[in-house]
Order: sequence, then structure tokens, then C-alpha cells
Amino acid sequence: MKKKVGFIGLGVMGKPMARNILKAGFPLTVYNRTQEKTRELVSSGATAVNSPKAVGESADVVITMVSDSPDVKEIILGDQGVLQGARKGTIIIDMSTISPMASKEIAEQVKARGCYMLDAPVVGSKKAAEEASLGIMVGGDRKIFEDCLEIFQAMGKKITYMGAQGMGAYTKMCIQLMVGVTMEAVAECLALGAKAGLNLNDLKECTLAGGAKTGNMEMRGPKIINRDFETHFALKHMCKDLKLVLATGDELGVPLPMAATALEMFKAARALGHGEEDVSSVIHAIEALAGIRVGSHQNNQL
Amino acid sequence: MKKKVGFIGLGVMGKPMARNILKAGFPLTVYNRTQEKTRELVSSGATAVNSPKAVGESADVVITMVSDSPDVKEIILGDQGVLQGARKGTIIIDMSTISPMASKEIAEQVKARGCYMLDAPVVGSKKAAEEASLGIMVGGDRKIFEDCLEIFQAMGKKITYMGAQGMGAYTKMCIQLMVGVTMEAVAECLALGAKAGLNLNDLKECTLAGGAKTGNMEMRGPKIINRDFETHFALKHMCKDLKLVLATGDELGVPLPMAATALEMFKAARALGHGEEDVSSVIHAIEALAGIRVGSHQNNQL
Amino acid sequence: MKKKVGFIGLGVMGKPMARNILKAGFPLTVYNRTQEKTRELVSSGATAVNSPKAVGESADVVITMVSDSPDVKEIILGDQGVLQGARKGTIIIDMSTISPMASKEIAEQVKARGCYMLDAPVVGSKKAAEEASLGIMVGGDRKIFEDCLEIFQAMGKKITYMGAQGMGAYTKMCIQLMVGVTMEAVAECLALGAKAGLNLNDLKECTLAGGAKTGNMEMRGPKIINRDFETHFALKHMCKDLKLVLATGDELGVPLPMAATALEMFKAARALGHGEEDVSSVIHAIEALAGIRVGSHQNNQL
Amino acid sequence: MKKKVGFIGLGVMGKPMARNILKAGFPLTVYNRTQEKTRELVSSGATAVNSPKAVGESADVVITMVSDSPDVKEIILGDQGVLQGARKGTIIIDMSTISPMASKEIAEQVKARGCYMLDAPVVGSKKAAEEASLGIMVGGDRKIFEDCLEIFQAMGKKITYMGAQGMGAYTKMCIQLMVGVTMEAVAECLALGAKAGLNLNDLKECTLAGGAKTGNMEMRGPKIINRDFETHFALKHMCKDLKLVLATGDELGVPLPMAATALEMFKAARALGHGEEDVSSVIHAIEALAGIRVGSHQNNQL
Repeated sequence: MKKKVGFIGLGVMGKPMARNILKAGFPLTVYNRTQEKTRELVSSGATAVNSPKAVGESADVVITMVSDSPDVKEIILGDQGVLQGARKGTIIIDMSTISPMASKEIAEQVKARGCYMLDAPVVGSKKAAEEASLGIMVGGDRKIFEDCLEIFQAMGKKITYMGAQGMGAYTKMCIQLMVGVTMEAVAECLALGAKAGLNLNDLKECTLAGGAKTGNMEMRGPKIINRDFETHFALKHMCKDLKLVLATGDELGVPLPMAATALEMFKAARALGHGEEDVSSVIHAIEALAGIRVGSHQNNQL
Repeated sequence: MKKKVGFIGLGVMGKPMARNILKAGFPLTVYNRTQEKTRELVSSGATAVNSPKAVGESADVVITMVSDSPDVKEIILGDQGVLQGARKGTIIIDMSTISPMASKEIAEQVKARGCYMLDAPVVGSKKAAEEASLGIMVGGDRKIFEDCLEIFQAMGKKITYMGAQGMGAYTKMCIQLMVGVTMEAVAECLALGAKAGLNLNDLKECTLAGGAKTGNMEMRGPKIINRDFETHFALKHMCKDLKLVLATGDELGVPLPMAATALEMFKAARALGHGEEDVSSVIHAIEALAGIRVGSHQNNQL
Repeated sequence: MKKKVGFIGLGVMGKPMARNILKAGFPLTVYNRTQEKTRELVSSGATAVNSPKAVGESADVVITMVSDSPDVKEIILGDQGVLQGARKGTIIIDMSTISPMASKEIAEQVKARGCYMLDAPVVGSKKAAEEASLGIMVGGDRKIFEDCLEIFQAMGKKITYMGAQGMGAYTKMCIQLMVGVTMEAVAECLALGAKAGLNLNDLKECTLAGGAKTGNMEMRGPKIINRDFETHFALKHMCKDLKLVLATGDELGVPLPMAATALEMFKAARALGHGEEDVSSVIHAIEALAGIRVGSHQNNQL
Repeated sequence: MKKKVGFIGLGVMGKPMARNILKAGFPLTVYNRTQEKTRELVSSGATAVNSPKAVGESADVVITMVSDSPDVKEIILGDQGVLQGARKGTIIIDMSTISPMASKEIAEQVKARGCYMLDAPVVGSKKAAEEASLGIMVGGDRKIFEDCLEIFQAMGKKITYMGAQGMGAYTKMCIQLMVGVTMEAVAECLALGAKAGLNLNDLKECTLAGGAKTGNMEMRGPKIINRDFETHFALKHMCKDLKLVLATGDELGVPLPMAATALEMFKAARALGHGEEDVSSVIHAIEALAGIRVGSHQNNQL
């Protein structure tokens, strides 16, 4: 018999993920702070409830997908939190991108109540969430992971068990380090090429081989060149994630000079008003430093 | 009738490139400072001469593939240089990675003597040179580029005309910026993952998607994990190239904070004795800062 | 009539500060987590109590001098906190180095209870605390500041009213930025000089003029040269403070590339085992990167 | 009897230095590319000649004070250079700020001709040059240094013999590292303070004690606050000097992450059009990143 699933956090990513769980045939209970976001799922067969606690009461497996550590804490451990409603053996899967340290602390309290926790952050955009092709990296008890595999498979394609509690979260930190640093590298590369007078589309093509290759140049290079900063992953979230990355390096004793330098550039782009735009909008920071504009309306002297 | 080609600089890259030109049926004259490196090519039908000047006398198109700007200057403009032997209309193709400013200066003098120059640096390792699958980015007169296309096709696969004199060299700078910065990002990523206790092969796999994807993680991640620093591209050359990148940013007025930070880490790895090893050996710098060792003999506390 | 003063936090700095208040003739109530630290002050006439709440009950002005935001929150706002014992009009002066944001949040709650708060962090070492020569930068209501001036004068020499609530804390952030960045600059300067083979004492002298002059070279340069890392200000506290500085820049929208780079070097020195030593011990990070040792037993090749 | 002195390079610094030598009673021969700059000195008793060679012919001690390594090379080693006119035993004192490596190479050639060389860069502004209060750090043969001491004393106050050939130049590199890094630290400090809403004059005062103290805040802080960027030391020269510093670190194997980060900020300020202004104009780089304006017309939101 299919596990009863609960889903908390129906944002840009959470909603399509929940929809895919429903599609895969799992009974689904949902909760979201703004209730109207539950409507579509309810009309497809989900049950909406009024609190994380109520989700905890009704589900075998509760998934949380929200924006930061304090939210996850409140939702799981708060007065109206999942644990207030959960039974012994309830499984909580946090798929948010939060600090590994916070994740492990929450897991401690979850276990102390006789429940289980997996940290299972995802890789992929809204589109991947819709197409059930997310990458999912999971930390926690292996048996519990295996129990939930079918649920993960409803949402993602590349599902990797990374090890003990927190290992999913640590993996996400390593990944975000790469995303942030290469994004800023792409910005520097295009700024240098623009000022040199290169055709940026040709330049982009030339950097898509060998050691110079990056997913960010492939996906976001063309958007920068066309000055299209429509948000796929908000720059302000990259700021948050790189701060988590540095805090993780701090906890583990690993200095990260590149990540630290990159973060200040993202902060600059945010300070210049681009926090809600796509992460590729970090190009504005290097443009401010060089007094140039990169891309389609190519006019390298402001 | 096939153009007569001259080739100067038969190093790790130059030798297989020259061999491919010969294979493609071009009459070939070669010169190398250390003469014994010409032997194999001579036994395959090339003619060895005693100076760049002699190459200039015998060839329609002279290719130079050496290590730095001063070498290129000496070989083309020196007392025994190519220009001393060249005729009006001789084409010089410099495929070395040198400063775009130096490249343009040399081209000025080449043109003043009634000759032509193309700057045509390459992307790809020794293997790509052997397999005639190099990427080649070319700057200079378009007609001259087209005249030489067949020669380029003998050595490479992805051949891109980038624009006026120097544009090939500028493209290479942009590419090396990406190679250097992402290499150091990979080092930070693996160091963070190692200290967190992650299985690094799994971590590597998880970073090969989306915005986190890099050619360096794909190609060099596994080598770092196995502590295999056999040289494909020497770390000391990455130092040289990043210095050229920063000098180019300096000339063009584009500050490059990430490239600057990365360079200091490469300098550190070189100072710690790893200059002759592969560029991936930059992991030693972050290891020194964190007091850890990353990879196969994984022992995170030295 | 002299105000009744309470003092919470009798550490390396707090104890001599409290002693000077007592010397200046103020009736003094003290509290410290480890009670034995109150003994000396009690034998000089202070009264020891068992909780911050009890300090709040007995004093007109309560000074807190502890290590980080969570401690200050607990002491002031906790179940046994100062506010539980305070009357309307009680003044709380927090002299700890904490986040300006946290400081302002605490002040909000203090005011909501009809009490007053000043943020008044200090500049100066243990010696300055003993000699009552601390610098004190104060934020909050000016009238309240003036009411407390005599108390500040018992502890410090250079007392500056910086403006509204939080301005003392912001000033401390700006100061710690300078301390951290110049300390790391001194380390780089001495490492470069050592590897060049300079006499480091002569070098130190030459840098103490004009734009090169820094308090850190003057005070800590000689100690580094003599490999004397006895703790005056612990390196781990510099890590904490620079993290607060960057968080403040983050809140205010001011990217701080130098402070960010410096912090990673301090983290490195801490990772290498020097967190409890003096902040000057950051030299170990640059030494690890360069593979050298700086200073008296000058042996520049490890 | 007083030595006959020659002086080449009568710029902002060189002219007052030469004047002081004349005042001290030394017979003086001068040369400058732009001849009119010799006029004032000639009217005070100096002799103007038409080439560095002619200076070499007429002087026992030739001082060079120009802007960069290529100039020094040309002036000393060129076709019309000092060495062409010098006798065995002529002493050449280069007081320019140039690369220690270049300085040592030039000295080799000077010695090969039977002459002597001292590298003797200075610390201090135009005012210090006028008042004969420069700091002078000297490398080279100690006996030769002692022979020239009286000449140095005519120009400066704090004269330090630093050791063998090149040690003066190395010292200057260490000093410029401090100047550059602390200047950028001052910019970050004031930007943070401005955005926090602090009174910047009060902030400046608070940072002039202990480990936070810097000569740059003392001298240049007030100028930034008043938006007075009149040139005392041009920002473009700081760019040049920090490039020399990093090249020196590169030669010696000392990574310098702070100096590297600082340089990119100076490059930014230069790219934004402030190269000819005072070095304090680096504030424009951080202002561009944060979207603020610091100082007198304090308007923190552009």
C-alpha cells in the first residue's frame, strides 16, 4: 500500500514537486502559509489542512520545502509543528536548502521524539521540478532512504544516497559553491570579452569545451548576452546559499577564498537592485566595477 | 597546389600538430631549438633547418607554437627570425598562448614588412593535438584566415574566426580565465566535501549537472580524488596564463576579482613545489590552508 | 548620589572594568556564570548575586560584557534575565562586541519594557581595561548617555557619543574591519620581506610612516618577528568579529572584498590550530601558502 | 671635497630632491626629457646637459628618479645612457620605485662596467621631498652607501641601509603593499560607516587607535570625507606599484591574496576614470559596488 505523504511549502519548486507525488498515486495532504496555493492540488485530489501539526497527524512521510533554516525549524519543531502531530516512526524529509548544521540539529530533535529524518535537497530549476527530473541528494538512515525511494522517484531522476544525517545538505553546499563561483566566472569572462570587442556568442561557444566548460555559460551565458534576467534562480537566494556555504566552511575548518570573493560580488549586484532577478544578474557587479555594459545592446562605454 | 608550411616549436603540443600537417600532405619545414625533436618529423618527410629565418625562406605559411611572448618575438622579429627570411606575402600564424597586446605589436611589425599574421591559439590537450581535434580561435584578416583554413583543419576540429588581429588571443584569455577559476572552484568544492566526510566520487557525480557543471570537475575531479597529478597542463603554465589574463584585464580596464584570487592560489601551489604537476595540483593550496588532505588516501587530519 | 551599578560578565575585560567602577565609588552588584570570578570584587566591596535578574533588581545601571549576541540576549531577555528584575527607567549598557542588528533588536524589547539601552563597545586590550583607558563608542539616547558619562569615565578615556541606538555597535564593526584587514596586511608584508631576505626589524621600522603606517605593525609586528603569539586578542574572536562585519555589510548592502578575503585567512590560521593564540598568529596562514616561516628563527624554506 | 652629483628625472618628486642637493652645496648636473623643467635649477646654479650620457660624463654620483623599469633601463643602459659616459667607479643611485628584479638586473650590468649601483627608493610625498624629510631605504654595497650618506641626508631624514643589492627595492615593495591594502581598507571602512549613517569624522577619530590605526585613515580619511581627491600620489601609480608587488611575490613564491584583491579595486577606480586623482579615489570602486556615495555631500542612495 502506498505511503501517505504530507507536503509543506508549495512555492515555485514545492508545488510541482507535490503535484508529481500526487500523479504517482500517493495520498497527499498539503499545507502552505498562503492557503490559496493549495487550491490547484486540492482540486486534483489532495487534502489541505491548517497547520504543519495537522500534516504530521495525517501522513507517514512529511516533506518540507521552504526557504531557510528558521522556517524549517518552525515548521518541524514549532508549537504547531509537524512533530506535535507525528507518531513514532513518522518520516520527515526536508528538501529545502539549509545549513547542514541546522539540519543535523533538527534531526536530533526529530529522533528524540521517535521519528526519522532525511535531508534531501534538490538540484534543478522549476522546469526540472515540473518534469520530475530533479537531482536529489539524500542524507540519513539508509533503510529509511530505501523506504522512501519510490517517493523520491516521483519527483526526480538522479537520486543519490550520500550517507549519514546531514550528508545531503553538505552535498548541496558543495554544489552551490560550484554554481556561485562559476556564475561569477562567467560574468568576468563575458565582461573581458565584451571590452575586448569579441562577438560574445562566438566566445560563449569557444568556452564550452574542455576545462573551460561550465553549465552556467551554457545555460546563462546566452541570457546575459541578450540581457534577459528573468528569474530562474533568484540572485538573493544565491547570496543566501553562498553565506551557508561559507558558514559550512567555517564550521568544518575549510577556508574558501573563491566562494568568499564571489559572494561579495553577488552582494554587490543585490545592493545595486538586482536581488529578485536571475542569478546571472551578477554581471551588473562587474559592469559597475568596469564602467561597461555587456551584451546585446553592446555599448562598452557607458 | 598545397601551400608550403613551416613549423617552429616542436614541444608537447607542437610536434603532434606538425605531424598532422605533414599527414595532410603539406610540404613541411621544421625548426626547433633542441634539434633532436625534429628527427621523427624528418624521418616522416619533413625538412629540418637551422633557424627561424631559414623557415621563413622556405615556407608560404609559418606556424609558431612556443611558450611565451619573448620567445615569439625573438622567433619572428629576431636577428635570425622568420621575418629575416620571409618574402612579401608570407603568412605567419602564431598559435602560442601569449598576451594579446604583445601579439598585436608583433603583427604590426609583421605587416610593416609586407607579411601577414594570424593569432590562432588552441584549446585542447596533447591528446587533442594528436587526434587533430583541437579548438582553434583565429584573429586577423578574414581572407588570410580563409586561405589557411585547410591548414587549420589539418590540426583541429572546431575552428572559429573571431575577428580582427588579436581577437584569437583575446578569446584564449577569456577561456583561460574560465579554466583557472573553475579549477580552483573544483579544489574548494572537493576540500569542503572531503572535510564533511562525503564520498568524493558521489559528490563529483552530483556536481556534473546544471549550473554546477564544469569540464574541470569532469576531467580533473577524478584525478584529484585519486591523487593522480600527472601533467596534462602544467600548473606553472596556468600561473603564466592567469597573469596574462589579469594583464589583459588591466589593459582593457576590466577588474577581475575571481581571476586574481585564483591566481594567488595557483602561485601558492607552485610555491609549495607543484609547478611542474598538472594544474589540478592546485588542491595542495587549499589543503595547506585547511590542514587537510583530499582524496583517495583520505585522511582529513594531517 | 552615585548610581547603583550592576556588572554582568567578569572575563578578561569585564573584571578590570568592574574593578574600576568600584574604585570610582559606585555601589556595585556583580554576576558571573562561574561564580568564583566574583570573589575578588566581593572582597573589595561588591555584592555578588545569583542571576542577571537579581542584578536587574538591585541596580540603576546594568552593564553587560560577554562574548556574543546569544549570550547578551539570554542575559537581558531570558527567563532569569535583567529585564525580569528591572524597574521602569533601568538603564542597560551592553559593552560586548555584537551584531548591530542584534543590538538594535534587543534594545527594542528593552524599551518595550520601559527601560533604556545603550550600545557601548570598547576598543583596547586587557591592559587598557586595567588602566581605565579604553575607548568607548556609544549609541542610544543622548540624554541617557550623558546620565551615564561618569560611569564610562570610570572605565575609559576616549568616550564618543556616536548617535542613535546601534551606532556604537556599527562603529565597532568599522573598527574591527580595520583591525582584521591591517593584521592580514602586516602578515603579507612580513612574509614578503622575510622571503626577500630583509631584516624584519628594519622593515618594520620603515613601514611605520606615512600611508604604510598601522597600529598592528607597531604593536604586533615585533611579536610576529619574535614568534611570540601570547594572546592579547584571540584569533578566534577576530574570526567572530569579521563574520559580524560581513553580516553588517550584508545587511547594509556594502560589499567588502578585503574584509571577506581577510576572514578566510583568519579561518585558515584557526583551522591550522591557532584559534586560541593572538590574532597576529594569522601569519601561519600565509606561511602555509608560501611554505615558509617568518621571523626570529628565520628559516625561509620549511 | 664635495662629490659632483648628477640628477636625472625632475618630476614632482625629483625636482625638489635635486634642489635640496644643490642647497646642501653639491655641484649639480641635471637632465630631464622635457628640458624646461631644468630651468629653475639652472638659475639656482645647476648645469643642464643634453643626455643621461652627458650626466654620466660630468658626475661622480648619478641619481635617477623616473617612473618605471623601462625608463630606468633606457636612462642607465641605453645608447645615450649614463653608462656610456661614466668612468670606472661612478656611482649610480636609482631612487625610482621599480621592480627589485629589474633593479638587480640593471645593477649587474652597471657592475660589469666597473661602476657601482645603489637602489634607494623613497617614502614620502612631494611635501616631504621639499622639506628634505623623505624616508630612504638603500640596498647595495655598504661602503658605497656610506660614501653617499651625505647626499642622502640632503634629501631625507630617515635613511636606512637595508642590505645587499635590491634590498632597498624589496623594502619599497613591502611598504607599497601596506599602503595599497590599508588604503582600500579605509575605503571599505568609510563605506560601511556611511551606509550605517555614522558621522564619518567621528568614525575616523575612533579608528585612530590600537590595531585599527592607519596612516591612510589619518591622512586620507578626511580628504575622502570632504571629497577632495587632489593628487598627492596618483591612483594609477598605486596600480603600477601593486602590480610590482604582486610580481615580486610571484618571483619569491609568496602568494598575496590581500594585495591581489586590493589591486583589482584600484583597477576598478582607474577604469571608472579616477587614475589621475589621488590614491584615495579608490573609494569610487566600493561606491560603484554598493551604489552609494560616501562623504560630505552624504547621500547614501545614488
